[in-house]
Formats: sequence, C-alpha cells, structure tokens
Amino acid sequence: MTASAPETPARLPTRSARREVPRLDDDYTQAAARRRMAFLAETAGVTPEHIGRYSFDPAVVAGNIENFIGVAQVPVGIAGPLLVDGEHARGTFYVPLATTEGTLVASYNRGMKLLYEAGGVRTTVVADVMQRAPAFGFDSAREARAFGEWVTASFAAIKAEADATTRVGRLHDIEQFPASRFMFLRFNYTTGDAAGQNLTGKATQHACTWIRAHYAGIRDFYLEANLATDKKSSHINILRTRGKRVVAEAVIPERLARRIMRTTPGQMFRARQVSNLGGLLAGVNNNGNHSANGIAALFAATGQDIANVAESSAALVHTELLADGSYYYSITIPALIVATYGGGTGLPTQRECLELLGCYGPGRVRKFAEIVAATVLCGEISLGAAVVADEWVTAHERLGRNRP
Amino acid sequence: MTASAPETPARLPTRSARREVPRLDDDYTQAAARRRMAFLAETAGVTPEHIGRYSFDPAVVAGNIENFIGVAQVPVGIAGPLLVDGEHARGTFYVPLATTEGTLVASYNRGMKLLYEAGGVRTTVVADVMQRAPAFGFDSAREARAFGEWVTASFAAIKAEADATTRVGRLHDIEQFPASRFMFLRFNYTTGDAAGQNLTGKATQHACTWIRAHYAGIRDFYLEANLATDKKSSHINILRTRGKRVVAEAVIPERLARRIMRTTPGQMFRARQVSNLGGLLAGVNNNGNHSANGIAALFAATGQDIANVAESSAALVHTELLADGSYYYSITIPALIVATYGGGTGLPTQRECLELLGCYGPGRVRKFAEIVAATVLCGEISLGAAVVADEWVTAHERLGRNRP
Amino acid sequence: MTASAPETPARLPTRSARREVPRLDDDYTQAAARRRMAFLAETAGVTPEHIGRYSFDPAVVAGNIENFIGVAQVPVGIAGPLLVDGEHARGTFYVPLATTEGTLVASYNRGMKLLYEAGGVRTTVVADVMQRAPAFGFDSAREARAFGEWVTASFAAIKAEADATTRVGRLHDIEQFPASRFMFLRFNYTTGDAAGQNLTGKATQHACTWIRAHYAGIRDFYLEANLATDKKSSHINILRTRGKRVVAEAVIPERLARRIMRTTPGQMFRARQVSNLGGLLAGVNNNGNHSANGIAALFAATGQDIANVAESSAALVHTELLADGSYYYSITIPALIVATYGGGTGLPTQRECLELLGCYGPGRVRKFAEIVAATVLCGEISLGAAVVADEWVTAHERLGRNRP
Amino acid sequence: MTASAPETPARLPTRSARREVPRLDDDYTQAAARRRMAFLAETAGVTPEHIGRYSFDPAVVAGNIENFIGVAQVPVGIAGPLLVDGEHARGTFYVPLATTEGTLVASYNRGMKLLYEAGGVRTTVVADVMQRAPAFGFDSAREARAFGEWVTASFAAIKAEADATTRVGRLHDIEQFPASRFMFLRFNYTTGDAAGQNLTGKATQHACTWIRAHYAGIRDFYLEANLATDKKSSHINILRTRGKRVVAEAVIPERLARRIMRTTPGQMFRARQVSNLGGLLAGVNNNGNHSANGIAALFAATGQDIANVAESSAALVHTELLADGSYYYSITIPALIVATYGGGTGLPTQRECLELLGCYGPGRVRKFAEIVAATVLCGEISLGAAVVADEWVTAHERLGRNRP
Repeated sequence: MTASAPETPARLPTRSARREVPRLDDDYTQAAARRRMAFLAETAGVTPEHIGRYSFDPAVVAGNIENFIGVAQVPVGIAGPLLVDGEHARGTFYVPLATTEGTLVASYNRGMKLLYEAGGVRTTVVADVMQRAPAFGFDSAREARAFGEWVTASFAAIKAEADATTRVGRLHDIEQFPASRFMFLRFNYTTGDAAGQNLTGKATQHACTWIRAHYAGIRDFYLEANLATDKKSSHINILRTRGKRVVAEAVIPERLARRIMRTTPGQMFRARQVSNLGGLLAGVNNNGNHSANGIAALFAATGQDIANVAESSAALVHTELLADGSYYYSITIPALIVATYGGGTGLPTQRECLELLGCYGPGRVRKFAEIVAATVLCGEISLGAAVVADEWVTAHERLGRNRP
Repeated sequence: MTASAPETPARLPTRSARREVPRLDDDYTQAAARRRMAFLAETAGVTPEHIGRYSFDPAVVAGNIENFIGVAQVPVGIAGPLLVDGEHARGTFYVPLATTEGTLVASYNRGMKLLYEAGGVRTTVVADVMQRAPAFGFDSAREARAFGEWVTASFAAIKAEADATTRVGRLHDIEQFPASRFMFLRFNYTTGDAAGQNLTGKATQHACTWIRAHYAGIRDFYLEANLATDKKSSHINILRTRGKRVVAEAVIPERLARRIMRTTPGQMFRARQVSNLGGLLAGVNNNGNHSANGIAALFAATGQDIANVAESSAALVHTELLADGSYYYSITIPALIVATYGGGTGLPTQRECLELLGCYGPGRVRKFAEIVAATVLCGEISLGAAVVADEWVTAHERLGRNRP
Repeated sequence: MTASAPETPARLPTRSARREVPRLDDDYTQAAARRRMAFLAETAGVTPEHIGRYSFDPAVVAGNIENFIGVAQVPVGIAGPLLVDGEHARGTFYVPLATTEGTLVASYNRGMKLLYEAGGVRTTVVADVMQRAPAFGFDSAREARAFGEWVTASFAAIKAEADATTRVGRLHDIEQFPASRFMFLRFNYTTGDAAGQNLTGKATQHACTWIRAHYAGIRDFYLEANLATDKKSSHINILRTRGKRVVAEAVIPERLARRIMRTTPGQMFRARQVSNLGGLLAGVNNNGNHSANGIAALFAATGQDIANVAESSAALVHTELLADGSYYYSITIPALIVATYGGGTGLPTQRECLELLGCYGPGRVRKFAEIVAATVLCGEISLGAAVVADEWVTAHERLGRNRP
Repeated sequence: MTASAPETPARLPTRSARREVPRLDDDYTQAAARRRMAFLAETAGVTPEHIGRYSFDPAVVAGNIENFIGVAQVPVGIAGPLLVDGEHARGTFYVPLATTEGTLVASYNRGMKLLYEAGGVRTTVVADVMQRAPAFGFDSAREARAFGEWVTASFAAIKAEADATTRVGRLHDIEQFPASRFMFLRFNYTTGDAAGQNLTGKATQHACTWIRAHYAGIRDFYLEANLATDKKSSHINILRTRGKRVVAEAVIPERLARRIMRTTPGQMFRARQVSNLGGLLAGVNNNGNHSANGIAALFAATGQDIANVAESSAALVHTELLADGSYYYSITIPALIVATYGGGTGLPTQRECLELLGCYGPGRVRKFAEIVAATVLCGEISLGAAVVADEWVTAHERLGRNRP
C-alpha cells in the first residue's frame, strides 16, 4: 500500500562544511580506528562501546575494509553433525552459522539430524566457472557479428593475454551474445580457490586492451554491462553457472520423516507441487524454501562476500516420491560464489570458521562448496516439513525474538 | 564448464556414533559456549582463539541464535558524510558498513562525496507492506473462485483475527491469485518498526485457523507456498513490494561528474543504455550495478537479517540526461526488508551501528530505509562512473586483496 | 551459432521513385483490390491467382484491413467431439482449427477423445479484465506518490470519465505501480463480448485527459509504457490477468490412459516433473506443452487477433496423481484475449466458425473462452502422452509435411 | 477481478453416443470435406457458406491439416514499399499482411514510408539455429555429470547419427544444462530453408536412440522437457537463439520524424526510457511495442506456423539519440521461426505471398527473415511515434472496428 507522507516533514538542516572521515598515514592501526571513533562521537554524538572490541591487530584488515573503526560481532552457532557424501567433503562436519535470526540454527540442525539418519547428503560440483562480460559496440549489427567471428578465430591470443595476468585464473571459453549493434562477450574462467571476481576483472580488462588494440571499428567498450550480473540474480547465471554449480541430494525413508519431522514424504511432496505452482506465479528465482538463510549464515561466518547472497540464493529444487515411499530431495545451486582463499577468508574469526570445516588453505574450495550445499539441503527439508506439519510459526514463537 | 570428478575420491569414513552438539540447561552462558568450543576441539581438532572473543554476556543472544559459541568479527568501516534529503532521514550521516571486500567502503565514500556536493540524495518510501501468502486447495477451480468471493466478503472478520495476535501488525488487504484448483492469498500487513516476517506469520496462521473453521471444502492448506517469497527474489515482490519500496534520487551537475568521477553524464548515460540492454539479455532482477554491496554491508552492521539480501537486492534504475547537461539518477528498491526493532537490531554492536545513524528505537524504520537507499544510490553512481572511466579494476588493484 | 555473411553481397539497387500502393476513393471494392493486384504484377512481377479468390464483398472488410487485395486461405479442420463441462459452454462441440501444421488437428482430436471418455473438461473463467496502463512522470518520487493518493481519492470521477466513452466497457479499479519518479496506473475494465483493447484505450485516454486537466505537476504522460503489455507476454499479466483467466481441468482414469494414450498417469506425471524442472531452467512463460498450437488455430479460425497468441500462450500447468491411480490435469491460461464481437469476428468464415461453436453474438465470450481452454487441455495431454510414449516423432512422420 | 458464477448454470446435457468426425478413405477431397460439412450441419445445426469456398484441390492440404472442411479467409492487405538494406533482402518490397485488425496495415505502411525516406532498414541475421532438447535422468547428479562428459567425447558419433536422418539438417553442437540428477542436452542444428522443428525432432530422436543403446545407466529419457520451449517464450531462447536471430536497424533524421511522425527523436527517446522502466516492472519478454502484430500478419499470409508467434514475438529494442539529433532505432528478434520450404509455405495463397516477396523456393529463408525484421521495425517506430504524438487512439477510431 502507499506509504503516505509524514505529518510534519522537518526542514533539511543548513549544511555546515562537509567533514570527511579522518584517515591517518598509518591507517590500519588502533590509533586510526580510535581517531575515527572520536570523530563519530563528535559528529553523531554516539560513543560505541562494543564496536571497538575486536581481538586482532587492525593491520590484518588492510585490503578488506577502508575507514576501519571496529567490528560487527555477529553471533555464531554450531549445527551438526552434518554428514556429507561428497567428492571433496566426506564425513561429518560441525557447521558454524553466523546469524541473528532465532530458530535458524535449530532448524538447520534438525535437518542435519534427519539426513544423518538417512545416510547423509550426496554433493556434486557439476560446473565451476567465474566470468566477466564486456560489451563492445559497433556501427551496426553486421560489424558486431564480424567482430564475433574474429574473437572466435583469435581465442588463443586472447587467452594468452588474459591468463598472463593471473597465477590461478585460466580463461576457459568466451561465449557470444549479440544484440543490436553490440556484441556481449562472456569470458568464462576457472579461478582456483578464489571466488575470482577481481582476478577475472583484471584478466578480462587486460585481454580487452589487447582486443581494442588489434581490432578496428570498436565504437564502445564497457568491461561490464550487466551480462555477468555480479551480485545480482539473473537467468543467465541460473542457466550457465556463476561460481560453483552444486547439487545436493538425499533420500529420506518414510519412517524417518514420520519420526523426526512428524510428516510423511507424501505430504511433503504434495506441498512441493503447490510451492512449484506458487513459485511459477510469483516469478521467483528459487522454487525451494529458504536457501538464503543457510548461505548467508555460512558466508558471514567464513568471510565470504555476503553481497553474493544475491545470486547465490537462486536454486532449483527437484524432488521425487519413490516407489518404496521414501523421498528423493535435491537442490541445485547454480551460482554459488565461494572462496577459501582471498577476500575475507583469512581474517581471524573467518579463518577459524573455515578451519572448523577443514576448508582453509589451497585446494579446498570445492569441499567448502559441497558443505554449503549439504547444509542448504538440510534447511530446505527442515522448513519444508515444518510448514507441512504446521509447526513453523510455533517454532519461531518458541525460539525467535517475536516481541512485536 | 563441467567440473570433472577428482582423481581419487576418498572412501566415506565409517560412521561412528552421531554426536550431538552439547547444550546446557542454562545455555546462553559463557560456560555453555566454552563447552561447545571444547566439543569442537575434540571433534574437529580445531581450537578457535578469536571466535570466543566477544564483548557481551551470552544471555543477550537468546532469541537470536542457538548453540552459540561466539562471534564472527566482521570489520566495520565508515563512509560519509552522506547527505540525505528524505522525509524521515534529514541531514548528514556517517554510515557504518560491515564487509570484507576491499574497495567497498572507499567506493561508497566516493559516491557520497559526489552526491553531497550535488545537494544530497532525495529519498522517499513509496510503499510499506509485509506479507504471508497461504495457499488453499479445493476440488476444482470453481470452488477456489467461490472461496475467493467468500474471503472478500469476510475480510473484516479475517482482519479481526489476524490483528488480534499482534501489537504492531495490521492487516491492510488480501490479494487473490487463483491458479488451477488453488487460491493463493497474499495477506499484506503494516508492521511498525519490525521487519515483520514472524508477526505476519503468526497473524496469518491465526486468521487461517479461523478461515478453516468457518469455510467448508478446503482440501489443502499451506501457510506458505512460494507466493510471498521470503528470502528469495521474485517478480511479484518487484511489482507489489515486500518490506519498504524506497526511491533514492539525485541530480549530478556535469562539472561535478567531471571533477570527482572523471567522466561525464553523457558517457555515464550511454553506458547505462548498454547495461539496460545487457540486463534484458541476462534476465537480471536489477538493471543497476551492485546494490547488494551496500545493502549487505549495512545489514551486517545493523543486525538486519542478511539472508534478506536475496530479495532486497532487486532494483530498478532509471536515469535521465537533463537539458542542462546534468544527470538525473534514481534507484527504486522494491523489496527492502529492514527493521529497527526486533531480530538482531538490539545486539550490542548492531544497536550501536543503528545509534550512529540515529535509527535505534521506535518510529525509526523508515528513516533507516531512507539511509539504506541513499547509501545504495551513492554506490551505484560510484561504480557506474568507475566502469565508464576505466578505473574499476585499478581501484580494486589498489585497495583490494587481489592476491590470486 | 553465428550466421556468417553471404559470399557476395549484392549492391543495394539504385532507388527509383517511391511508388505508393494505390488506393481508390471507394477503396473496399473488387476494383480497388484488382488495381492493387495489377500494381503488384507491375512492381513485383507476380500475378497471384488464389489470393484474389474470396467469397465476400470487400465492403465487409472495411475496419479490418487497409490496402485489401484478397485473402490468405488457411485450411480449417474439425476436431471433436469436445465435451465441455463449463459454466457457459456445456455439452459437445466440434471445434474448427485453422492451421497449416500437419498432425495438429489429429493430436487435439486424440486428446478430445480421451477426455470425452473421461467425462469431459471442466472449465472455469476465474477472472475477466482488460487494461490500459498509462505512465505519469513527475519532478520526484514524492510527487508521484502524492499523485497516486489523489488518484485513489478521485476514483469515482475518473471512472465516470472513462465509462462515458463506451457502451460496454466499465472501469473496475486502478492499480498503482510506482517506480522512480513515475506512477504507472493500470486501468482494469470489464469489456463485455469485445476483447477490449481499443475501447479501453479510448476510455483511458479520455480519463487521462481529465486527469491532466485536474492535476498540476504532471511532467510526462504516455498512454502506454509497457505495463499492460498488449501482444507481449509478461509476468504482470500472468499474475494479474489480461483478458480471461480460465482454468480447464480433467481427471483421467488409468485404464483410459493406457488404452488411448499407451502410457500411464504415473509415467505422464513423472515426465511432468522433469518438464517443470526444464521449464524453470529455461525461464519459460508456460510450463506446459504447446498451448499456442490450439490457441493460434482457434484464433485464426474465429477472427481473433492472432497477434494475441503472444500473451495468450502463457500458461500454468498443475497436475496431481490421485490415490486411485487416475490423473488430475489442469491448465490455467492467465491472459486469454478473446472476443465474440468486434474485430475480425464478424467476417464471413470467421463468423461461421464461431457459429459452429454457438459463440457468435452477444453474451457468448465466456462460453468461447471456455471452449478454447478445454481445447487447449486436450492438446496438452495428447502431446504430453506422445512424448512419454515415444510416439511424437512418429506421428509427425506419418501426418506432417516432413520433407526436409 | 473475480469473474463470478453465472446466475443459472445449465445442466450438462445427457451425453448421447460419441459421434466421431467422419473420414473417408480418400480424405483429401471435396467429397470428404462436404461430408464433414454435412455432419456439422447435423450436429451443430449450422451450414457454413463461406468456409467451403476455397480455390484449390483439397489434395494439396494433405500433410497440413486433418479433417479438412475448408478455409478461413483471412484478409490480406499490402504495405510498402519497404526498403531493405539486408544481406539477402535488398531493395524494395510490397509486404502482404494477413490480419483482421484495422489500422495494422496502415500503421506499418506509415513506418515503411518513414524508413524509406530515411534510407531503408539495415537487416542482419546474426545467428541461425534450431533445436531439440532431450532430458536424461540418472541415479544421481554425479552420474548425470559423467554422462555429460561422455556426450562431449562422443560428439562426432552422435552427430553422425543425427545428420543421417535428414538431408538439410546439420547438428552444430550440443549444449549441456545439468540440474538435479538430470542432464538436459540442447541439440543445435542448422536446418536450411525449413523451420526445422520436425527434422530436428527426428534427428535428435535417432541420435538419442543411439545414445541410449551405447550408454548404460540412463533411468529416464524424454525427447523434450521444456528446454527448447517450442511455441513458448523463454529466456533461454532470448539468450541462445531459436530459429533466426535477426537485427533490424535504421537511423531517422529529425526532420523526417517531425514531418511524417509529428514528433521528434528526443520525445520518442524519452518515451522509450519510460517504456524500458515499465517493461522491467512488468517482466515483459519484449521491451518494444508490438512486434507480434507484424509477425503474426506476415506468418498468416505466408504459411508460417502461427503458433510460433509465441516465441517469435520476444524482442530487444535498443535506441540511441545521436549527436546530430537523428535517432538510431534497432530491434533484435532472438527467436524468429520462419521457413520458405515445408509446412504451409507451399499452399496456394501462402506460396503466392512468398512469391510477392521473391521468397519462395530454396535458399530464401534468410531473405525472408530479413523482410520480417524490417517490417517489424517499421511497425515499432510507427506505433511508438503515435503514442508519443497522442495519435494512437485517434487512428484506431478512424480505421478500426471500434463499435463497442
């Protein structure tokens, strides 16, 4: 509904001189952080007591933040054991989840219990690719098409340029999407243990500098123009993968569903059909229940870029009622952006959370992706069962902060 | 591309007995947290040093987390001054952003500088509504339609039931979406300063209990079936609003664009056209640049539910090149889920971050929504200009943790 | 894949003087049509023999076409009996289908046979509404919101203006969709037996003239700006209906599926699940099989606007495997644009086709909508079964013109 | 709004015996057609006079229709001259349009006049590909991925199987889309002058028979499961092309816009921006105006499959206001399904309409695709200008059949 104007809109205060947030030459220090805190006390009249209570030397956050003043202390709870039957993650895990939403850890924990009893979650990384998608403009569509043919013919040279800028990134292929007098190219890379948005940006820019020097007639060039859709959910990424495309699967025997979830596969399956219909109506990017909850909580705990919840929360749920009455449940996460190296993964608490999962350091990123997907599946089933068993609101009443 | 199987997949370890995460009777205590830490040391072989370094009594996180072990320390930086010309937020603000992505604070800060010089960001909450969307199944579409007519006729009674369960929530209207032999109802509420997912769940469940007692012939009932799409991005929420629908607008004089952004309105506008085309191709839920970055950083700092980045990151950007050469830039955020009460907003650091913005306590939620939207707009323009001025990768090289 | 340039692109012929298609004062006559035919013989060097063979006086096509030269003779076949258990259409119908696609009539006929044996198709028009959606621009989002409040308050006056222009159209409500500094209004009308695009255009324009005269501060006005999406498929119309929203339902006993379709409900249901998954991946506007086939064939036969196949072909299929082994199958067509009055419905063959269905003349449009939906359902099941029974290609080999 | 139940729903007539539509041994004859007409007179009580007035021997429609009774006579008008600067279509064309919507021919004609004066429409076929997309199910996602690797390795053998079934079709590549425990394959073919749905169906079925014989572990197989989305609009086809991907472009000098359209490039461009915003809100598959009108009219005239209007009506419009005040206008049609051979193209009036365009016979399909795209562009600009100049309703009042 329309939000009406407030009764008496205040006058915009006369602007005094603009006061920049102070920075010191040696800016990643407690002194610099305290200086900014003092500035805030002066300008906002607030003196935070907790934000400044962190357990590390500010030098460690250089490269992760600017104008550092302290930390948000986000509560971490543990769910588990999560039993994973992956290719990279194998065995049981206790999963750190950072959240402020009461019930979340308990709900994931309940799903983990069910799927542990059911034999674990099978996980598979089915694709792995990170991209930048520059746009090139020409005089007409015909020139754009000709450019596309040249790109195809020049792939080896373009790849050499791109790969030269990065130690771990490798250009795999370039997809072409022509529209109007533009050719959008989608540079697909493997990126090792990094999420890879920065390294693909650098590699693609370098390759494009070479392209622009070697191809005449380019009228426009943009390193991005909404076809890689970083931090935005898009259909192209559901189709073509961004980051890891991971499938988590499990089979739930009927007796376990009854015992632990107080519902049956038949009832859950029926609810799923209606959710599919509702999701089609809604035009949702995820026909499942709430994968964003588990993903956001794991991302916050382990130093992933939480803005990537935007695209990582897309999902495809497919379930089957099996002949023996058990329930096959799968979720496909087509654009899971994760890293075990770079970004925030090396910060103190974040690194510890990765270490709890055995996922810190080189060669662990697919293991981590599998754990994320397995966690997500547990949460899907737990919430799905709660809705069917009419226990959803009750659980939130019991565990959540439902004061209003 | 396909992610191949690893060379030698390990055997799934023989499952030993399932060990639950320990809980104590008095579970929100340092003792309980330490007990779980000891358990993790035993099971995972890891002894975290930093996670357990928090500055508050664990009793405060009851209702926000289960199986508490400590905190993720997420670095907070300050951007500003942000000049807001809103109806609820008026004047300058220094904005706490919690992130691990280098460059983010600097980039938002740059946009804030530009728009400060340009006279500030105008913000308007144009709609405000939270919902639950139960599905009711019948023998046929005809019965579903008849039920819809009864719901329309019974609105007053249904509203009385819903409103009775909540102090701040008020049922505003019920939208009907028939499909197959189902009637999906969308209960739209105002929810005061709370985000409202829980209170609307409780109110709707209560109302539906009344409905089911008073209407014969309901074969299926689900409190949710993917038509409210909590924590998922959907077209229905882009169209019909979920949480706050906020518009942030600014006009950038050409000379400022040149001086601060090293580009021109004409160049930025041209790039925007190509981004619109790319976004249509991609099927993206946001034709802008990266609103998720600012939203996630503000959410993490202030105790919002970060899983809501999933739907809050949808956006509609519309810009105009004005006759005098200046640049009108707007972003509409159709599903911004925010609270200044309940959830994680009262936790120590989170509350302090809200206080820095003058947004803690009753009657502040629209003020906070306006600050979020204004912040987002600054980030849009800053990144947009960087792409056009070819400075994007360079900035990440300088400020980010681009080691791979 | 890229379509390469042809080997030797011809030179664009020197433009001679532009020769307009000739028109006579009395233009809807055989003489005028022949004059244009002669002109084509001269300019294109082609003398059509069949196009000019029509069975009516050209005077009848005034208002339906300009520069008339003759007719496309589109073959019509008959499928049936179609047994409809609707509210408006009741009993058996023999359905005229105009198409050039071999197999189409046979396939629909097969589905009609199955559902006749199964007891017929239950049809329900669950919503009925046609719209225009003008956009109004303002100085800022705040003014756009204020305008929306004024529109709500002024609804009675606006309705009086709109309704004054039309005998059968009635303005039902105005939905508001704010974005940036624009307010998009969706005027929803009932339109009697007409499809109503023209009458709603006229009524809305008239109402908007009044609005613009009575509300100060409107900077931009467009009678359409892509929010009614005439002749385009859109999510808003799937959600909110355009034209008729019709549901067709049937229950197929297992023995009939086996006998007539050589498959089982279980097999069909399983295929449906995979089609739902594929459709989510594809981002399709219709998770069913091929409703456009039946709709286009009925539209061409009965003088509907065939361009409306664009939006009328959206659909939501929902099926259920029932406890007794039978198969509940439903299709919801959310934007079926049909008329039994106006447009092409009164032309000679088109009127006859409507008369064959008892659908010509006043008060028949919902009957016709029900017949279309029932026909569509028969085709869905027939093709769905053929894919499952692996008979699809075989049928096209036998009946279609598969010469390449 | 809800469509209520009618006052007095009639009783469903007692079913008499089911009477099939009569067929004769020699069914494509006047005798057979008359026999069916007599049957309709008996069953429906209607004796059509015009449907039976066709100008050809019914033998010619064998392979195009079953249960033939006659024809729908759809009025054809001529628009032109259309000046095309294509690679295959070059020079002026007079375009036959079959429609019953008054104003349509006149509106396209007006656009053709404008673009003739402006130097013509540049057209480019940028991609050309038709597909079938079978789905294969496995025990788990891991097996589905392994199958995908085998398909990649076996491409040459699969291609040999597919190509063996068709004279003109050639398998170009197979795209893989994994989800859950399924692997969806998209077989992309070139199909000569045929639209190719049937030949790709046959070729893919044949290839899949080979695959199923040579690969163990396939649990499910469906030749289609909604990833090629024949006759349905989908995002995958907007991205990846289905049929012809054609771009039509033109530049309109300001003086011509003023003289012929009574508006200016600046006004049209501004309206386009608002239409883009409205289209994003609506979730439309075409940010342009009404391409379905021109496509449907050309399809009906020339024997294309009119059900393909469903996917062919998707479009991407991109325009630019140029420095000299002129207006660059482009439309990209990503899934234009056309043929100049097979299907209905050889029927008498349909072939004549193709001949009028010099598009009947081998090697003409891209020429025809270019003419369709050029026609569409003329209609886009004409309607776009009418909306801006506020002449849209007036034109329909003057030329259309707006009796309600």
